[in-house]
Amino acid sequence: MQALTISPGTAQSLRLDEIDAPPVPDGEVLVDGLLLGVCGTDRELADGEYGWAPPGRDRLIIGHESLGRVAQAPPGSGFEPGDLVAGVVRRPDPVPCGACAHGEFDFCRNGRYTERGIKELDGFGVQRWTSAPEYLVKLDPALGRAGVLMEPCSVVAKAWDQVDRIGGRAWFEPRTAVVCGAGPVGLLAALLGVQRGLDVHVLDVVTAGPKPGLVADLGATYHTAGLDTLLDEVRVDVVIETTGVPAVLAAALRNATPYALTCLLGMHDPEPPVALDLATVGRDAVLGNTVVVGSVNANVAHWRAAAQALGEADCSWLLRLLNRTVPLSRAPEAFVPQPDDVKVVIDLQP
Amino acid sequence: MQALTISPGTAQSLRLDEIDAPPVPDGEVLVDGLLLGVCGTDRELADGEYGWAPPGRDRLIIGHESLGRVAQAPPGSGFEPGDLVAGVVRRPDPVPCGACAHGEFDFCRNGRYTERGIKELDGFGVQRWTSAPEYLVKLDPALGRAGVLMEPCSVVAKAWDQVDRIGGRAWFEPRTAVVCGAGPVGLLAALLGVQRGLDVHVLDVVTAGPKPGLVADLGATYHTAGLDTLLDEVRVDVVIETTGVPAVLAAALRNATPYALTCLLGMHDPEPPVALDLATVGRDAVLGNTVVVGSVNANVAHWRAAAQALGEADCSWLLRLLNRTVPLSRAPEAFVPQPDDVKVVIDLQP
Repeated sequence: MQALTISPGTAQSLRLDEIDAPPVPDGEVLVDGLLLGVCGTDRELADGEYGWAPPGRDRLIIGHESLGRVAQAPPGSGFEPGDLVAGVVRRPDPVPCGACAHGEFDFCRNGRYTERGIKELDGFGVQRWTSAPEYLVKLDPALGRAGVLMEPCSVVAKAWDQVDRIGGRAWFEPRTAVVCGAGPVGLLAALLGVQRGLDVHVLDVVTAGPKPGLVADLGATYHTAGLDTLLDEVRVDVVIETTGVPAVLAAALRNATPYALTCLLGMHDPEPPVALDLATVGRDAVLGNTVVVGSVNANVAHWRAAAQALGEADCSWLLRLLNRTVPLSRAPEAFVPQPDDVKVVIDLQP
Repeated sequence: MQALTISPGTAQSLRLDEIDAPPVPDGEVLVDGLLLGVCGTDRELADGEYGWAPPGRDRLIIGHESLGRVAQAPPGSGFEPGDLVAGVVRRPDPVPCGACAHGEFDFCRNGRYTERGIKELDGFGVQRWTSAPEYLVKLDPALGRAGVLMEPCSVVAKAWDQVDRIGGRAWFEPRTAVVCGAGPVGLLAALLGVQRGLDVHVLDVVTAGPKPGLVADLGATYHTAGLDTLLDEVRVDVVIETTGVPAVLAAALRNATPYALTCLLGMHDPEPPVALDLATVGRDAVLGNTVVVGSVNANVAHWRAAAQALGEADCSWLLRLLNRTVPLSRAPEAFVPQPDDVKVVIDLQP
């Protein structure tokens, strides 16, 4: 069978390899890979920017945004052949830190976690893969192909969980959310915001392509004006920032509405420094009881929350996010972004 | 009797007025004022930078850091003559916002709160004052004069409460805290950190005067190196920033330890903008799950936590913070900072 592999740390090493079907470890579930989502992290891995092969090997099977169907499951695993599933990305070290010991490996303190398709564990860019049942999440069968959105949705579910837990440190009845960036993470953040009954505003720079329509059809409002302007106009309770663009971060810091909770999810290449009046930023943060929280990855609870959120969404809207599908045989094309891409996926089956 | 008053918004208006003893509203407690603490907010008020007199009046009795002894208390109020007490500063609007309706007036959303000695309510810079019992906190009699630290300690108790609630969104067993600034708020933040069993590091610029010794006698470590250096050397779980100095905020943002929780309490006059590599700051925040939270004021629960913290502290250490006492007759001297001041207090009794 075929697997999409890289030599971590080496640019241009992405290729399709013919490999043996994986042995199925005792107690594990065997899964037929259906789709693989591709994101910026995958492009950075393929560019050799980071990534770690499994111990003793040179190459890593890439891919952390999985969708598969159970081919074979041990009795009592909670899974049956035919189940639609996604695989959790991160795994704690066998000697867990305090957070990992509590199942919160998205807060891993010792850095010894592993990640499928990224760090020391083969990923999901392969036609058959296995997983321990506790790192497999069952999806509503009606989701079909849209289930490949599970990984980005788990990141978003964690972000909203952070918002709820931190906001809930005192009275918190948010009404309005701004999402910066209308990529897959931003659109899913907007979806979960709308599901919570919030008035959601999504900010992006593009005026054409599918994004404005996707936002509008969610019942949210699409904006191309700057965040400064929007934060001046709208009394915002929650900001979900998915771009990492320094000018957007600066606007978020400069114009934070009192009591606003800003959750950072986006990362961006370095740019020249931005001048900030930190005395005023700090004073406004103090007087406004504002919060800025960074959030990365997701634990199993967030994966389950994501499965529920996707299951409750309009599946036809979710499917519109998957607006470019590349067959496995031409997988490298998926790593070259196209202007109107929302979520690019690789079809793992022939 | 004498009261220390200002004409809000007018510089140089601070003066001692002879006023009538206050009528005691039904159900309220009459208190003999013992001491009044003076802080930066009082100096700004005296400088005419802000402040609001009670409706229909020109002058406001200044002072929000109170210590008094109950002179007269209605039956069932929970207070008796002789009780050592401090008065809570902020009061919710009679038509409360959502937060105020939950007693969380430190998170007041509509801005219609009032504050004794600051906003529309006479303060505690007077020889006798009254309070509704629910805004009066009873202190351990052994505290004596040290009870005047209640107001800054309530601000610090809220800060630590924020740290606990936000940190507790996931596994959180902090070991090390850095406190920026060794003023009264910083020293009390360090005290509460030590009381929690943390390894506490306090950062300030002065090498002489009482601060290094006060920090050392708390069992904490005093530093005069920059925050950058300290954050590089120490794995910090919590930063309590009490200075508001832009260079310190920049260092806190640039060097936040992964998983660190930074609580901003300090405010500072505007300074020229600081250049920040926000792409890197943002990336580190995301990958590190870090939090920056602003915190202001304190609600009754925090006042009670402060009373407990002060009651458990070494009273002789607390008394060393009160290192300049000015008699009421010379009260304006308390508003002119001296180099070695920690907490300046005004003695309200003849």
